[in-house]
Amino acid sequence: MTIQSFIPPQRTLMGPGPSDVSQRVLSALARPTVGHLDPTFIGMMDELKQLLQYAFKTTNANTMAISAPGSAGMEACFVNLVTPDDTVVVCRNGVFGARMIENVKRIGANLVIVDSPWGRAVEPQLLEDALIANPQAKFVAFVHAETSTGAVSDAKTLCEIAQRYQCLTIVDAVTSLGGIELRVDDWGIDAIYSGSQKCLSCVPGISPISFSDKASEVIANRTTPVQSWFLDQSLVMGYWSGEGKRAYHHTAPVNSLYALHESLVMLQQEGIENAWARHKAQHEKLAKGLTDLGLDFIVPAEERLPQLNSVYIPAGVDDAKVRQYLLQEYNLEIGAGLGQYAGQAWRIGLMGYTARSENVALCLSALTDALNKFRS
Amino acid sequence: MTIQSFIPPQRTLMGPGPSDVSQRVLSALARPTVGHLDPTFIGMMDELKQLLQYAFKTTNANTMAISAPGSAGMEACFVNLVTPDDTVVVCRNGVFGARMIENVKRIGANLVIVDSPWGRAVEPQLLEDALIANPQAKFVAFVHAETSTGAVSDAKTLCEIAQRYQCLTIVDAVTSLGGIELRVDDWGIDAIYSGSQKCLSCVPGISPISFSDKASEVIANRTTPVQSWFLDQSLVMGYWSGEGKRAYHHTAPVNSLYALHESLVMLQQEGIENAWARHKAQHEKLAKGLTDLGLDFIVPAEERLPQLNSVYIPAGVDDAKVRQYLLQEYNLEIGAGLGQYAGQAWRIGLMGYTARSENVALCLSALTDALNKFRS
Repeated sequence: MTIQSFIPPQRTLMGPGPSDVSQRVLSALARPTVGHLDPTFIGMMDELKQLLQYAFKTTNANTMAISAPGSAGMEACFVNLVTPDDTVVVCRNGVFGARMIENVKRIGANLVIVDSPWGRAVEPQLLEDALIANPQAKFVAFVHAETSTGAVSDAKTLCEIAQRYQCLTIVDAVTSLGGIELRVDDWGIDAIYSGSQKCLSCVPGISPISFSDKASEVIANRTTPVQSWFLDQSLVMGYWSGEGKRAYHHTAPVNSLYALHESLVMLQQEGIENAWARHKAQHEKLAKGLTDLGLDFIVPAEERLPQLNSVYIPAGVDDAKVRQYLLQEYNLEIGAGLGQYAGQAWRIGLMGYTARSENVALCLSALTDALNKFRS
Repeated sequence: MTIQSFIPPQRTLMGPGPSDVSQRVLSALARPTVGHLDPTFIGMMDELKQLLQYAFKTTNANTMAISAPGSAGMEACFVNLVTPDDTVVVCRNGVFGARMIENVKRIGANLVIVDSPWGRAVEPQLLEDALIANPQAKFVAFVHAETSTGAVSDAKTLCEIAQRYQCLTIVDAVTSLGGIELRVDDWGIDAIYSGSQKCLSCVPGISPISFSDKASEVIANRTTPVQSWFLDQSLVMGYWSGEGKRAYHHTAPVNSLYALHESLVMLQQEGIENAWARHKAQHEKLAKGLTDLGLDFIVPAEERLPQLNSVYIPAGVDDAKVRQYLLQEYNLEIGAGLGQYAGQAWRIGLMGYTARSENVALCLSALTDALNKFRS
């Protein structure tokens, strides 16, 4: 066995994430590694915290980046907050709501599931009905932007309802952060997690996370240990906290945090509202082009995520052949369907650095070619 | 708030990890991101598995890299294998044995602690005594190379004893993999985890891991779900497994895996036995120099890790001032003491790419200067 260095191809990433990573972020990633307790690195972590507060639109002190992907960020929110005696209402309208349910089950907590159709927003009235029927509920969990379908839910309204019934909210913002309006403090979100590799266009592997003061209090008042040592937020914050000496918990992924810092510096330079507007503008161009190609969207226009466009695969077109052709001929990745839509849909991402005119143009031209070639 | 790009200093990393990352690995890290289901990336993962098998000296099919630091690798071993009914014997001779205990407690399993003095190897007779006294024990867990003290334990003998009492072994190889002799199959290790940032000299954030067929069977025969969804090995292996279609579990840290691949290609090119010999040779030069400087080792010579040299801070010398001076004047990081040795010891690492003559020379000269300056 002699294995050579791996030289990846240069793709254009228009799937459900990772999105294209700019050369600026890749260069930051490759800067010299320093120790995870180096004073310069601690300074960078403090800045990173501020930048994440900017992106989340929050002043939560308990804001940081989990040293693992978004799935671990989800688990961190659930295992730190929820104990087996609690009741959690989970809204499910796709794969990632189902994953939340899996998390609640593994804690052994009481579960109330609110199902809305896949490809649609979570129906607020169904959440309210569930809260009326389950007055003991302590948490409401939902996905802001369902990566499996491309549907956005009305996070502001869902949080309002949860608060009316004295529930804390746990929100999946993996695909929403940086791509669409998201206001943690204004909307009263209590626990939120995201991923580095979607609309922030950083490399995959890191999960930004934030807890409100109310949620932090729940964590502080726990009487049983968090079932995960690695994700125990009270220990993790001993390393991330701004005051005094940092307590070693685990070795931070130093270079990946350089990259996240750089991607957030870029977001700040653009202005987050401008980034939201850019996603919307590019989506409109792409959506018009896809519609002109005769492709039908899964999600009704008013519930569509600009950054993730799910369209039905036309009858008679071979899913795998088209995607393979786009990859081989154009170095263009689009996403396959997931869950209920496996084999039935394509998911075309316009996330972060990917959301640029040149990519919309490439995608529409390449898809036109592929459909002409593979439409029977 | 306007935050600028972060430009880290160029350090020489001679602490307990992260170690120096070569330009070759940093360049691999910065290669263009591809999708985590891209066929070229799946091919790289297959190679990575082979390279990890080479480094671990195993043919275990269940060998891969956890998408998170070594602490998560530790947790993955415990939560996948151990259930609340099981009894686990944990050998503790430093901070990381104590962390294993924390993992067992959070599973709610029965715990037997075998304490050996800090700064010494685990005492095999004490393990055997514990197994005689606890015939119900199902697992034996120990740290091969204690990063908190610099002591190596006799993994081969400890595994032999465990097997004699029908126990499966869980071994922490965070600091040993690539730096000293380690033979997973020959020694009969059942579950092992390591870190990317020690003797492999990759960036921090990834944990190589391997399970024997016997351990994989225990996981397959579980009747209760693993308490962590993110670390559930049966789901993770659906993404890493070689046959057929890869099932999406989470988004792999694509670029960090490029870097791990490259660091293992370098290890293979050097030859792992040559890497072990290099660590030993550089250690001998460093140890002689430290002794000449009047510094005393914590660990007796025959139980010392070549890659991590713990020495007592001489009386009257200010710990923090010396380390700060080395960092500011020489861009040289050495490690502080941890746990029982906090404020009493320095930990000088010679891990992976750091274990080179130029670094030994720098360290000895810089320490000579610092001690002259700060010895009262």
